[in-house]
Amino acid sequence: MVPVSIAGASGYTGFELLRLLSGHPRVRVTTITSRANQGEALADVYPALRRHGDLHFEDTDPDALTRNAELVFTALPHHAAMEIIPSLLDRGVRVVDLSADFRFRDASVYEAWYQKHTAPHLLKEAVYGLPELYRDRIAAARLVGNPGCYPTSIILACAPLLREKLIVAETIVADSKSGVTGAGRGLALTTHYCEVNDGFRAYKVAEHRHTPEVEQELSLLAGKPVRITFTPHLVPMSRGILSTVYAQLEPGVDAQKVTDAFHSFYGTARFVRLCSPGQFPTTLQVRGSNYCDIAWKTDPRTGRVIVVSVIDNLTRGASGQAVCNMNLMLGFPEDCGLEAAPWQP
Amino acid sequence: MVPVSIAGASGYTGFELLRLLSGHPRVRVTTITSRANQGEALADVYPALRRHGDLHFEDTDPDALTRNAELVFTALPHHAAMEIIPSLLDRGVRVVDLSADFRFRDASVYEAWYQKHTAPHLLKEAVYGLPELYRDRIAAARLVGNPGCYPTSIILACAPLLREKLIVAETIVADSKSGVTGAGRGLALTTHYCEVNDGFRAYKVAEHRHTPEVEQELSLLAGKPVRITFTPHLVPMSRGILSTVYAQLEPGVDAQKVTDAFHSFYGTARFVRLCSPGQFPTTLQVRGSNYCDIAWKTDPRTGRVIVVSVIDNLTRGASGQAVCNMNLMLGFPEDCGLEAAPWQP
Amino acid sequence: MVPVSIAGASGYTGFELLRLLSGHPRVRVTTITSRANQGEALADVYPALRRHGDLHFEDTDPDALTRNAELVFTALPHHAAMEIIPSLLDRGVRVVDLSADFRFRDASVYEAWYQKHTAPHLLKEAVYGLPELYRDRIAAARLVGNPGCYPTSIILACAPLLREKLIVAETIVADSKSGVTGAGRGLALTTHYCEVNDGFRAYKVAEHRHTPEVEQELSLLAGKPVRITFTPHLVPMSRGILSTVYAQLEPGVDAQKVTDAFHSFYGTARFVRLCSPGQFPTTLQVRGSNYCDIAWKTDPRTGRVIVVSVIDNLTRGASGQAVCNMNLMLGFPEDCGLEAAPWQP
Amino acid sequence: MVPVSIAGASGYTGFELLRLLSGHPRVRVTTITSRANQGEALADVYPALRRHGDLHFEDTDPDALTRNAELVFTALPHHAAMEIIPSLLDRGVRVVDLSADFRFRDASVYEAWYQKHTAPHLLKEAVYGLPELYRDRIAAARLVGNPGCYPTSIILACAPLLREKLIVAETIVADSKSGVTGAGRGLALTTHYCEVNDGFRAYKVAEHRHTPEVEQELSLLAGKPVRITFTPHLVPMSRGILSTVYAQLEPGVDAQKVTDAFHSFYGTARFVRLCSPGQFPTTLQVRGSNYCDIAWKTDPRTGRVIVVSVIDNLTRGASGQAVCNMNLMLGFPEDCGLEAAPWQP
Repeated sequence: MVPVSIAGASGYTGFELLRLLSGHPRVRVTTITSRANQGEALADVYPALRRHGDLHFEDTDPDALTRNAELVFTALPHHAAMEIIPSLLDRGVRVVDLSADFRFRDASVYEAWYQKHTAPHLLKEAVYGLPELYRDRIAAARLVGNPGCYPTSIILACAPLLREKLIVAETIVADSKSGVTGAGRGLALTTHYCEVNDGFRAYKVAEHRHTPEVEQELSLLAGKPVRITFTPHLVPMSRGILSTVYAQLEPGVDAQKVTDAFHSFYGTARFVRLCSPGQFPTTLQVRGSNYCDIAWKTDPRTGRVIVVSVIDNLTRGASGQAVCNMNLMLGFPEDCGLEAAPWQP
Repeated sequence: MVPVSIAGASGYTGFELLRLLSGHPRVRVTTITSRANQGEALADVYPALRRHGDLHFEDTDPDALTRNAELVFTALPHHAAMEIIPSLLDRGVRVVDLSADFRFRDASVYEAWYQKHTAPHLLKEAVYGLPELYRDRIAAARLVGNPGCYPTSIILACAPLLREKLIVAETIVADSKSGVTGAGRGLALTTHYCEVNDGFRAYKVAEHRHTPEVEQELSLLAGKPVRITFTPHLVPMSRGILSTVYAQLEPGVDAQKVTDAFHSFYGTARFVRLCSPGQFPTTLQVRGSNYCDIAWKTDPRTGRVIVVSVIDNLTRGASGQAVCNMNLMLGFPEDCGLEAAPWQP
Repeated sequence: MVPVSIAGASGYTGFELLRLLSGHPRVRVTTITSRANQGEALADVYPALRRHGDLHFEDTDPDALTRNAELVFTALPHHAAMEIIPSLLDRGVRVVDLSADFRFRDASVYEAWYQKHTAPHLLKEAVYGLPELYRDRIAAARLVGNPGCYPTSIILACAPLLREKLIVAETIVADSKSGVTGAGRGLALTTHYCEVNDGFRAYKVAEHRHTPEVEQELSLLAGKPVRITFTPHLVPMSRGILSTVYAQLEPGVDAQKVTDAFHSFYGTARFVRLCSPGQFPTTLQVRGSNYCDIAWKTDPRTGRVIVVSVIDNLTRGASGQAVCNMNLMLGFPEDCGLEAAPWQP
Repeated sequence: MVPVSIAGASGYTGFELLRLLSGHPRVRVTTITSRANQGEALADVYPALRRHGDLHFEDTDPDALTRNAELVFTALPHHAAMEIIPSLLDRGVRVVDLSADFRFRDASVYEAWYQKHTAPHLLKEAVYGLPELYRDRIAAARLVGNPGCYPTSIILACAPLLREKLIVAETIVADSKSGVTGAGRGLALTTHYCEVNDGFRAYKVAEHRHTPEVEQELSLLAGKPVRITFTPHLVPMSRGILSTVYAQLEPGVDAQKVTDAFHSFYGTARFVRLCSPGQFPTTLQVRGSNYCDIAWKTDPRTGRVIVVSVIDNLTRGASGQAVCNMNLMLGFPEDCGLEAAPWQP
């Protein structure tokens, strides 16, 4: 059993890591930290986890996190992650970071959308943790920047079409809808039950910080700079992201070419499931799992293709993907501890 | 008090009509019909309406509906509406039809997306019941085709931009999200609570029958044929539609021109509210009301405009708009009986 | 139009007052106050109310509240209400207080469950604002203590049975379930969407502060001291309270006597609806309205009666009842401005 | 890997069995049957289960079910279960029945609340499948009657108090609240999303058929006939039951005695978790798991004890308990395949 630790374990992604790792056959969580819950027992903060780990929250400190761990998950806010990760790496552990701090190859892009980067020397080394694109590099990485939830759903929807040059990259519009766990466990009027229930809304229209992250990966897939329009929305449900992606087809591209591209690209992918023709997925069918389910349709009336992808934002969009990355880094099967069927209903 | 009747009063749009008309100061519902609930008391079918109308459901019959009514609302399924409406008109009443049967100017378009039309001679006379576009013609109409819920939200979002020729009509993408009442009160697995709750999904991708209805009106606004891509989605909530509409701006169009167009187009509109700059609406803020709230943003990075509109699908998207049309037809103030504030939370 | 003002208008009960009063034909809201939103426009805090009152929030100050008002609604937290109300009364206005501060006849009971009372001399004068029990006294009152949400639902369920001595008072158990608006608009983990959604829980078991309020009124109805067991629960929905009340029947009491007691007690009550035999109400059927719908069943197997009552906690349980009390105080019809049908679905 | 089959696998309890067994390390599902979905692939009926079992639904036939199975789960409606189970047993398999047909020791009780029993000779042999009460008998059983969802939650809440004679059995009132999956996947207006969402209601007040099942087991625990009052309610959520149970304490019983009874009774129970003092459980904290979490409070004001228990109605209340019973019957550890942490949020 490989010892691992979790920094910032009291938020929703931290809980999801604990949930998944409590059933993982090859690793053992030795240390959890949380500034807010320091000193408290895991079962008191999360009664759901009583009997699933006799742990107490410690302060978020590099020595505590590396004392008995070969790998550390950092589930900290942006900025806090890059503050601590260099000292974790210095102590010889490997890191899967769930913040945005190490997802960008170009510090100036990060700084344009987020803030000053305090460890830009690590950006070249860090690997973007999307296994369908970077499986081999993840396995060898010392530091993995775990993808954002929206980017995971959008990049997986677009990758086959861009790589095969079937769509006009400049026409991509990504309309995404997320459950409320994506906003975290912190308190805000926008996550108050009565403000969310029975309400549906858009937010950060054309200015959400996941935009440049998506564009970085789509540009690499297309072999040229790509800019997209991205609109996130908040759905009155706890988990799940559905992204509806629109793009103009290149001349001469028909339904069969699109279908072939998806099947060819994802032929052996463990955690991508392509829907049967005519079926479109619901977020329910992947809930609690690491799957991304994808469907598509070409519209000859307008020459567009519409791709729909669904993930669980906490699992595939955060902690499940982080465990998958850990599996690759530690040489385990990609799906170790991630085999359970989705939750439905 | 003008006497009116409702055909097909036991579904959700029928209930909404009864709710609104029970508080209307100038009309009185004299007859309600329903094949399924014939003979039952209104208060037994809808306990919420006990003390709001001492009515029994009768069979859906032209004589019953016109015996004591100057105007009839037909809240019947497609096809059933056009079967009965000619005989209603023959008996001298005016009709507001909530089905799709009289929304199209061109019978061939209706027939391509729906079915054979049995009263095509009435299509030329029927007025499309969107007051912001056809207020005067509605007032004089004998037969109004009340708009669909999605079309209401999309047309109102696009109208100022198309009329002012600020956007490239061929690039319009409408991504709409609806609460479950839009699917009606009939039983289906897709409206079973446990299949909807915590799930979000797209359906009828690029093939929903509201597409040609939107295109008809957008083409008239643009002065040329317009084809759009339209994707409806189902949100786990009961009421509300939010449409996110994307389009490429014409060269030289900036944020100010877009803002001016909206304010100029909707300056005096009683039931359109334009959001303050930077605010985007939630479906909650119009719930139970006849408002359509609209916000927009131009994205200089991509040259697109994103417009977000929200309505209550049962009120503005069906029965509230039908009452508004009735008000215009009977010479009442447009907002008569529709003044109540939205429900929140 | 009688001028009225609202202290603490930015919470959910404040919003509900504004919603109801914006459609009231006999009063006009002249002043709204809120410490948190002082200086802001109503439409910016509540976009739903745009066009329903061109008001700005002022500081909560007795002079501002009484400058142009004959009656003041105080929708303030406990303690803040009793701090300001004496100075409001001194300025010659009448007051409907939505806090618990003036619901108790005995200051020592208030102090045992809440805190030191700072205006005990007003308790004798204050009238408990449940119209079914105190209609005449409310009409003449200078200060009305508007009932709590749970007490409204429980007292109305028990009143006919206690007054007719049909049940053993010592055996009353009230199991109540409330929507989340009952917890207010303040931020807490217990009202975070993701902690509430899909979860159902009990809270403050056998120690909720509405217990002595219920007991005060049940004791008066029974003519002797009554103690009950009361358990509140939180339901994943925004509005509504359903109370299930259990009690042992006195010997010889049968179903008919129970039914007769309800019909006799509530024969002419404007806002109580007794369900048809065999029907049990859902909270949906009273949503947004001032109704309390009641059903009951005797169980010969155990000798108990089970009474189920539903209200909207924000309307009948707070602001709707406050408006009803205002109507009585100002000599208007009891249902003035409260005639609208419930919202469904 | 022991081969097992499932009769009636297309409903919610069938899906839950498939979900749990797809991750079970010691058994393999060989056959699934469903009259409604006969011939269809599992992944087409439940896209969530794609890659979790390459099975097709067969007709519900004894030969198909026993061809390659040592144990059969019958997830059929009442009556259908007792029609087929004798022929399954005749073919030499063991059976865990999720219907009510084999939960009763006395055929006349079953027949008073359900219908004529067609296999009464098997009632004496069948074991009531509540492991905390009958662990050893289940292990040896050929036929297990898997408990109902409500009874599981109520019996576990009462068992320690009744066995230790701490409460007056005649005073037990069980007020239970269930998520909508408890009503099954069949279509009915009562499970239509828009009729459930935002609504809370009681149903089958004092006449639900789980009443005699609870009474059977409570009577055995008390050593004398016990009659209870039981009211089920429907909560707008998919999964979970919370039961609030009230009873009068016997004279001299204090909080410590109650606490000691729970700890003594459930000291080593694998799937019962007793809450920390002062904490009350939410249904969320057991979702997707086989746990029953229990809390209690004595109320010296009224001499009552209030016990609150939560389970997931589909897991502990049906399929998880069925798997647990299978584990006991096949000699596996009780929690084999049931170790995963609950789902939250």
